[in-house]
Amino acid sequence: MRVGILGSGLMGAKLGTLFARAGHDVVFSYSRSERKLKRLAREAGGRARAGTPREAAREADAVLLAVHWSRVGDVLKRAGDLAGKVIVSCSLPMNANDTDLAIAHTSSGAEALARKVRTARVVAAFGTVPSEVLFDVFASRRKRPRPSLLYCGDDTGAKKVAARLIRDVGFEPVDAGPLRMARNMEPFTLLIAQLAYEGDRGPELAYRFEWRGR
Amino acid sequence: MRVGILGSGLMGAKLGTLFARAGHDVVFSYSRSERKLKRLAREAGGRARAGTPREAAREADAVLLAVHWSRVGDVLKRAGDLAGKVIVSCSLPMNANDTDLAIAHTSSGAEALARKVRTARVVAAFGTVPSEVLFDVFASRRKRPRPSLLYCGDDTGAKKVAARLIRDVGFEPVDAGPLRMARNMEPFTLLIAQLAYEGDRGPELAYRFEWRGR
Repeated sequence: MRVGILGSGLMGAKLGTLFARAGHDVVFSYSRSERKLKRLAREAGGRARAGTPREAAREADAVLLAVHWSRVGDVLKRAGDLAGKVIVSCSLPMNANDTDLAIAHTSSGAEALARKVRTARVVAAFGTVPSEVLFDVFASRRKRPRPSLLYCGDDTGAKKVAARLIRDVGFEPVDAGPLRMARNMEPFTLLIAQLAYEGDRGPELAYRFEWRGR
Repeated sequence: MRVGILGSGLMGAKLGTLFARAGHDVVFSYSRSERKLKRLAREAGGRARAGTPREAAREADAVLLAVHWSRVGDVLKRAGDLAGKVIVSCSLPMNANDTDLAIAHTSSGAEALARKVRTARVVAAFGTVPSEVLFDVFASRRKRPRPSLLYCGDDTGAKKVAARLIRDVGFEPVDAGPLRMARNMEPFTLLIAQLAYEGDRGPELAYRFEWRGR
């Protein structure tokens, strides 16, 4: 698949690198530093390259939205027409000083995003794990039971694309249902952040849902 | 320990039974049916017995609050003085028709409860797993890796009591921090409910946090 990365910070850089290692065509975009984008593309290997948000979105089978919430409007404007595109978003709707969700309970960041880009197909995914755990999960994907990764959305086809990307980086996709479940997934992300960054066991945290059989 | 069960519905009945099997003195209370309470006590074995909420709370080292949110005021009134008591609550602040959280984002059921019983020591726990998984987790507690169970609260001593009860029924307690983290734990409970009751893999669902080491 062709995957455009909008936002090459911690999450975007790592996920883009892993998508490239899993064999996808990746375009890194939207970093303050053009040099950083080029370095990311070089280190990711394969056919990864640096580009503008518009280049990242063009011909992409999926676009990863991985910017700070305050940058969503700007990066979408730069990406151009996203009609019909699959947008996989891990952007959490944090307020300006990053202390709390700016949208919650009666809506969610994912739903607000879907309203902003009505013609695109939005899936919420990847937000629920710290970036610090990604490389380890990818490296051990054939060696140990996979951790879960929640995703939700209203478009079945888009969810299939997201589930494939989730599996490609080493997680087991767990379908949390319609996009409105982001109202619960986004607070779950804050819970994960608390365990990862405020606890004493470090940020390399993943989670696994276990259905117990008889 | 002496554990008083306030609310002997699905969660209260099962947790009380497991507390009794783990060796604690349990008093089941607050069911519409006195006969049900007596049957629960008989089947739980040990020194479990049926009683009134007041009897359940008296001399209890911990009280499990496991009633529908609409009954919290009533059961607390019947329980009498709870000054200094450890209240472990799994009551979710659902609205009257059980479709959504009635308190969220800027507060939580656990915090609202703590404001109602200012002299008690509130811990939120046990709400994040379906009652259907409890017996299996208890039965296999020595055979397989334990699932996690989140808890949060502001009183260190009360959290220790809750952590012990969590461990006694077969889970690994995971400290989610202060009571205000219930704002994220309660939506997580809705996420768990979605996976357990709306998915196709059934309600015997547990979760595990995994810190990946080097």
